[in-house]
Amino acid sequence: MVGGGPGAGIAETHRTAMRLDDKFEIVSGVFSRDAEKSLFAAKKLGISRDRVYPDFVTMSEAESGRKDDRLDAVVIVTPTASHYEIARKFLQAGINVICDKPLCLKLAEARELKALVEKEALVFCLTHNYSGYAMVRHAARMVRRGDLGKVKVVQAEHASGWASRLLEKAGHPQAAWRTDPEVLGDASVLYDLGTHAHQLSRFVTGLEVTEVAAEMNQIVEGRAIKDNANLLLRFSNGARGTLWASMAAVGNEHGLRIRVYGDRGSLAWHHEDPHHLRYCPIDGAPQILAQGADWLSADAQRWTRVGLGHPEGFFEAFANLYTDVADALLAKADRKTYAKSDLSFPDVTDGARGVAFVESAMRSYAKGGGWTQVEAV
Amino acid sequence: MVGGGPGAGIAETHRTAMRLDDKFEIVSGVFSRDAEKSLFAAKKLGISRDRVYPDFVTMSEAESGRKDDRLDAVVIVTPTASHYEIARKFLQAGINVICDKPLCLKLAEARELKALVEKEALVFCLTHNYSGYAMVRHAARMVRRGDLGKVKVVQAEHASGWASRLLEKAGHPQAAWRTDPEVLGDASVLYDLGTHAHQLSRFVTGLEVTEVAAEMNQIVEGRAIKDNANLLLRFSNGARGTLWASMAAVGNEHGLRIRVYGDRGSLAWHHEDPHHLRYCPIDGAPQILAQGADWLSADAQRWTRVGLGHPEGFFEAFANLYTDVADALLAKADRKTYAKSDLSFPDVTDGARGVAFVESAMRSYAKGGGWTQVEAV
Amino acid sequence: MVGGGPGAGIAETHRTAMRLDDKFEIVSGVFSRDAEKSLFAAKKLGISRDRVYPDFVTMSEAESGRKDDRLDAVVIVTPTASHYEIARKFLQAGINVICDKPLCLKLAEARELKALVEKEALVFCLTHNYSGYAMVRHAARMVRRGDLGKVKVVQAEHASGWASRLLEKAGHPQAAWRTDPEVLGDASVLYDLGTHAHQLSRFVTGLEVTEVAAEMNQIVEGRAIKDNANLLLRFSNGARGTLWASMAAVGNEHGLRIRVYGDRGSLAWHHEDPHHLRYCPIDGAPQILAQGADWLSADAQRWTRVGLGHPEGFFEAFANLYTDVADALLAKADRKTYAKSDLSFPDVTDGARGVAFVESAMRSYAKGGGWTQVEAV
Amino acid sequence: MVGGGPGAGIAETHRTAMRLDDKFEIVSGVFSRDAEKSLFAAKKLGISRDRVYPDFVTMSEAESGRKDDRLDAVVIVTPTASHYEIARKFLQAGINVICDKPLCLKLAEARELKALVEKEALVFCLTHNYSGYAMVRHAARMVRRGDLGKVKVVQAEHASGWASRLLEKAGHPQAAWRTDPEVLGDASVLYDLGTHAHQLSRFVTGLEVTEVAAEMNQIVEGRAIKDNANLLLRFSNGARGTLWASMAAVGNEHGLRIRVYGDRGSLAWHHEDPHHLRYCPIDGAPQILAQGADWLSADAQRWTRVGLGHPEGFFEAFANLYTDVADALLAKADRKTYAKSDLSFPDVTDGARGVAFVESAMRSYAKGGGWTQVEAV
Repeated sequence: MVGGGPGAGIAETHRTAMRLDDKFEIVSGVFSRDAEKSLFAAKKLGISRDRVYPDFVTMSEAESGRKDDRLDAVVIVTPTASHYEIARKFLQAGINVICDKPLCLKLAEARELKALVEKEALVFCLTHNYSGYAMVRHAARMVRRGDLGKVKVVQAEHASGWASRLLEKAGHPQAAWRTDPEVLGDASVLYDLGTHAHQLSRFVTGLEVTEVAAEMNQIVEGRAIKDNANLLLRFSNGARGTLWASMAAVGNEHGLRIRVYGDRGSLAWHHEDPHHLRYCPIDGAPQILAQGADWLSADAQRWTRVGLGHPEGFFEAFANLYTDVADALLAKADRKTYAKSDLSFPDVTDGARGVAFVESAMRSYAKGGGWTQVEAV
Repeated sequence: MVGGGPGAGIAETHRTAMRLDDKFEIVSGVFSRDAEKSLFAAKKLGISRDRVYPDFVTMSEAESGRKDDRLDAVVIVTPTASHYEIARKFLQAGINVICDKPLCLKLAEARELKALVEKEALVFCLTHNYSGYAMVRHAARMVRRGDLGKVKVVQAEHASGWASRLLEKAGHPQAAWRTDPEVLGDASVLYDLGTHAHQLSRFVTGLEVTEVAAEMNQIVEGRAIKDNANLLLRFSNGARGTLWASMAAVGNEHGLRIRVYGDRGSLAWHHEDPHHLRYCPIDGAPQILAQGADWLSADAQRWTRVGLGHPEGFFEAFANLYTDVADALLAKADRKTYAKSDLSFPDVTDGARGVAFVESAMRSYAKGGGWTQVEAV
Repeated sequence: MVGGGPGAGIAETHRTAMRLDDKFEIVSGVFSRDAEKSLFAAKKLGISRDRVYPDFVTMSEAESGRKDDRLDAVVIVTPTASHYEIARKFLQAGINVICDKPLCLKLAEARELKALVEKEALVFCLTHNYSGYAMVRHAARMVRRGDLGKVKVVQAEHASGWASRLLEKAGHPQAAWRTDPEVLGDASVLYDLGTHAHQLSRFVTGLEVTEVAAEMNQIVEGRAIKDNANLLLRFSNGARGTLWASMAAVGNEHGLRIRVYGDRGSLAWHHEDPHHLRYCPIDGAPQILAQGADWLSADAQRWTRVGLGHPEGFFEAFANLYTDVADALLAKADRKTYAKSDLSFPDVTDGARGVAFVESAMRSYAKGGGWTQVEAV
Repeated sequence: MVGGGPGAGIAETHRTAMRLDDKFEIVSGVFSRDAEKSLFAAKKLGISRDRVYPDFVTMSEAESGRKDDRLDAVVIVTPTASHYEIARKFLQAGINVICDKPLCLKLAEARELKALVEKEALVFCLTHNYSGYAMVRHAARMVRRGDLGKVKVVQAEHASGWASRLLEKAGHPQAAWRTDPEVLGDASVLYDLGTHAHQLSRFVTGLEVTEVAAEMNQIVEGRAIKDNANLLLRFSNGARGTLWASMAAVGNEHGLRIRVYGDRGSLAWHHEDPHHLRYCPIDGAPQILAQGADWLSADAQRWTRVGLGHPEGFFEAFANLYTDVADALLAKADRKTYAKSDLSFPDVTDGARGVAFVESAMRSYAKGGGWTQVEAV
């Protein structure tokens, strides 16, 4: 693991997700740039001192050189800006990567990572964890098997209320870097939240976003960046839609939701109630599909640990990706290769598309709105 | 009443709304272009034969010439295309008008009607009936009294599923004219449904939509027009938002809803459950405000006939507008003038703004998207 | 109309319901025991002075003696305690009756009214208005056509929050008589609310409640009576259930709801959202049935005035009963007789069963709980 | 661990819960009566062969005799009928116990276990896991701090749909023993589900159930036992309520829910949406309290791992109990004693009360209904 020292919330989520299905063990890492903090974290995790490294370069070299007990994959949970160079280094060393989202901050870098992954036939998981929910998987399967007919309209939102106050001026570290104009700038809300909604709409529909028209504004006055974005979308099959990303939608919880309308049916999912899916066929009454029901797809059943009426949440969705990755790593170890199923963990290509999407949206906004092509990856 | 012969559903709604609070009586009319049908309808309504007219011109002249038992107002429930000439005629004759929405199909005509209303100081009600709901009134009051702080984002939808099938080819008369490229064309979905969402967002927020960027597409293949529109909005105070109008959102009921986010709170209302309003203050838990609760504004209380837990619906909302109009007519009769309160029935100016809005959206779409100014009225 | 002078809320509901479908006209009445108030009310309603009477005896005699423009029915909206003697008098005079609920306060009296109705083949409607909702009708049809299999469990509630405070000591007239130990006593909550839940469970299931076991307690301290009742129920087909009646369920709105579980499916309806019905078949996903949907039964369609997504509420449900009664009155006028359909307005037998139910519950409670037979009517 | 060999679902839940917060390690066990299966399970769990035992007696003796690496606690996940003898043995050996619910099947045995726990000052956790949910903890705190005033009515349900079909005749092992008249008999639905609802109502309100009146019936025809129970309840402070336990409520998911009405407010929680709580104060609008909100009690905050809008579910609630127990075990190890906080894991007393409750309900039913005292423990 690279990153994840004291105070790093997302690393703890990764570690909990790993433990849940008991398929991973952390054996090595750089947990902080501060050696003392890194050792402290390592000790808490029960990691042997000789596999704690001063920096990721040393780690990648030492670990790739080991004869036995080699790393199956490195987990990167540092802030976004460093993902590129860390991931590159490990990929070059032939080590599989599990990386927190978003992938990186430049399309060119994303393409480079993608090329490395492909060249080395490595496993690369980008933890857009919402793609791991059983009912998101089921939604994706329903679209693919034609339950909705042809997809026509997609309405995606990740409008969170988490930064509805000027937290960055009240000592909130995450708010500080996420609203720093020098770090992510106005694109922050799209990188942090917009890419989740983008990935969710791609994952559920199996379509690509080909063009965007973007508008941004500011909800919390005094903030150094825009904190709200509304986008129009055009999809690869001609469908249309909107995407709303916000960090300051007052009163919203996490605010991630998607509605997909085809010409034969529609479905709706929202993260506040992740174990249900509303499905409306054109010729019958709306239905509430619940995780664990007998008649769900194998994709949903695979990720239902207990059963109907036993809610699974954020950690379980995260764990689902990790277990998907474990399956891929085992397959690769066995056969020297692996074939990802059509509904599995998001990978480097998904990550690159997310970066291309944000770049296009920012170009549209910079030029005063209007349709802007999303570059291919 | 002009229009409303056999088979005219909306006229029956108007008549039911009139009866509900018992403030209006239909005494005269042209109910159909077909004289026989008109007389038949008149007879059913118990209207004296000598006040049934062959056409609206004759009616306006005869009725304006009466010495006693004069019309308080004419109700126009004909298809949209004829609203302009009928309304103009009655206004010129000095007769107050209650007109079904949308006002008309050209901004120039809308402005002419507006000028006539103002010149003659007449009462003109455009029956955007959703502005009559008690909880919509309360929402509008909450925004005006500052409960949400400064409005920042408005998300409005009127995405109905009513025409999710190719009804126009199955003998459905309303679908036929609403999807006829010669009648309303691609603008149909905006005139019919978009104007409701536009009016709702204006009524609730007290803001004007100043610019739009529009995209349209088609959900039901084989249809002669576009049946779906997604718009970005800019509001007069700098707020941003989206508006989704659709006649083919499969599985939706009426699909009218609004969410308003300020920097101190947010609220949400949807027509499928019109007697509740979700309100989220920035510093407390989300609340479910229910029609009839003790602590609601006078605006909501005025339109609550029974009380908490006794749902009122579509007819009652419609009746609320009629009773608002009755109050205005009585005030005018008394004092030769009347002052509309800030939250009352939509009028000719609201109607003109709706037309300007649709025209701007269609211009934006015609030029391939991009921001387009909504003309002042 | 007997009753319904100034301040009588329920009478205004009856009058609005009558106007809605325009099938009734009030032509005669005793609106108050106070002659002046009665005349005042009559004048407001536009009733000819010669058909305003000093008391119901005079009215029944005068009206039954008329040669023309005879009453089709009398509407009784006085407090419960006087229903019996007024209804009896009009029935004896051969006049059809529409009576507010509950029917009366003694089973013996209820039986006498029932005998009179049957002897004279009169129309008698008891306005348990919730039986008029389109989706309640649909629920009843679903049970009768076997969608739920055999009914096994019924959970009914009318747990309102209306009297959660000591309103009777704050000058609230309705609270005063409803909590007066001399008027209805502890049975008040069962007569006022329990009978609605009882009728709803009978109407929806088509079953009779044959035995009850009752427990009561007091929520609002200082109140002169019990304001809360929990009952166990046994039904005529062997089904079991509970009924909760409360006037002080803090935070509840009207609190009327029913859940019916069969061995092949279940359904749930609650009055806070009366235009939807949740239906769960044993072999598929739960469904949300909406008023106005194409695939609903004729029983629901008959009572859907506008259509999908156009909510109808309390007044429309009330009006549905009135229109049911109008149909019955017209049929009777035509053929000297009428046959009530299986899902129509509640009548004198339903009313008598409600009284028998309350009496049994009170007997069970008086003897310290335990199963008590509901007497046949 | 005792029990939890191949196919034992609940044991896997216990193990996942242990891993989640990483406070427990399984080091020893009897996983099956079949030695081969037991060894197989042990191997999968990475347990040293010398700490796998042929039976629980051998295990308790061997483990209690160890000098180092002693067991902190034994986890009992066998079928209910064997809980008593296994728990007794380990308690006698001075080993803390974590036991799946219900505690046992006879009050006398429950009292014996309780006496042993108290005598030895041992930690005993009964995994009524729903008491672990953050919002259940918050509900319990709200009641204790007086937000609802005096509790007056409690409506509890655990009406699951899991056995709506005759699963026991279709080879479903859990259904087979749960509907076997020789194992649990008619009391099964109360032991399995009723005790959860009973514990939830006690945990949330802080009250005891002092009397019950019970009725049972059968939903699934052909089943060997009753599968549905409706109970009236009397609580220690005079409150009243009902409890519905069912294994065949068609269309229900897990069906666990509670509503508590006080004279100053009410609250509602249901397991299908465990991260929200509906709270209605008497003098304001109903509120939706969400896990992770800033203003929740420390009790809720303690059990919120990520934050607002990041749903936690069944495993997390289970893990919460385990972590509560870890705290208790650590405190005990430190100070040779421990003080359980008022809102912590359910213990042997809770378990004994559950058994007393079921016994009383069965006595009430056996005598044809009527109030029956719940014996003190």
